[in-house]
Amino acid sequence: MPSFTQLVPDGDNRLREVCDSCGFIAYSNPKVVVGSVLVEGGRVLLCRRAIEPRRGFWTLPAGFLEHGETLEEGAAREAAEEAGARIEIDGILAMYSISRIGQVQVMFRARFSGSPQFAPGDESLDVRLFGWDEIPWSELAFPSVHWALHAWREVGEGPLSAPATNPPTDRRGVNRILTEVAL
Amino acid sequence: MPSFTQLVPDGDNRLREVCDSCGFIAYSNPKVVVGSVLVEGGRVLLCRRAIEPRRGFWTLPAGFLEHGETLEEGAAREAAEEAGARIEIDGILAMYSISRIGQVQVMFRARFSGSPQFAPGDESLDVRLFGWDEIPWSELAFPSVHWALHAWREVGEGPLSAPATNPPTDRRGVNRILTEVAL
Repeated sequence: MPSFTQLVPDGDNRLREVCDSCGFIAYSNPKVVVGSVLVEGGRVLLCRRAIEPRRGFWTLPAGFLEHGETLEEGAAREAAEEAGARIEIDGILAMYSISRIGQVQVMFRARFSGSPQFAPGDESLDVRLFGWDEIPWSELAFPSVHWALHAWREVGEGPLSAPATNPPTDRRGVNRILTEVAL
Repeated sequence: MPSFTQLVPDGDNRLREVCDSCGFIAYSNPKVVVGSVLVEGGRVLLCRRAIEPRRGFWTLPAGFLEHGETLEEGAAREAAEEAGARIEIDGILAMYSISRIGQVQVMFRARFSGSPQFAPGDESLDVRLFGWDEIPWSELAFPSVHWALHAWREVGEGPLSAPATNPPTDRRGVNRILTEVAL
């Protein structure tokens, strides 16, 4: 069995997991989640999760970016896998840091490519389009789903501007208040 | 020594490295690079790299996002480590997919927090402010440095709008042309 020790490698400034036998450094880095707010006639597509965490709750089609994908390709793949939807991407709607769990989330605004067809994939129990007043707010899976839906509400179908970032009044997802870096 | 085999785990749809003895799945995901276009009086800060790759070439202060950091915290840390600079972040200037090497790059526009002080860190040979016409274009380290500098040139000190993304005419950094996902 491999054995790792936490130490600061030469030229580094923080603890890493270093293999006792070969010196391999097992870096642990944040992961990227990509997804989309997929809009059709003023309604937005949500997927009811068939898997943990938050099984049974509603979420945007999103998931981990894979090696070899661009952000746009990853978002399109997730919409296909989770919602059986083929999408066209408008642009970046929001970017969130969920540093508590080592995630960066990039959410695009998207529309259907061609006719609005969709169906639950393996990871979804149900997929539906919701008008703003129909969104199951108390059954949303994650804070960032709330944030992205509100970011979409702000911009609507208008030109995309600077992407939304973590709401400063909602500290869920981050460990600590943003502070200046001490030199 | 651990032994891994490439196979598709249950409920997954692509090959992963799975440990032969314990079933641990070693996911390999893209990494996030965060950095800034740090502007002072119309000039931009560049660092001359003291490390490989591209030692001796000029780059923006940027590096891998660490666990527990927000994007903004990561960009501020990199500016401190590489350029001895304390920064305030304006907002997101650009976001690039370098899928060929499994990177997502998030570049902020930033200014100095307080007086414009800077000095080379361990990973930099030199740090300087350059006016647009002084930028050492033929000695820039990476294509994305070119892209981010041009994104800054576009927006200047004006309001940030939708972030720049990979220039469609420059396919460096991605393996393949963006295509729709086959369903």
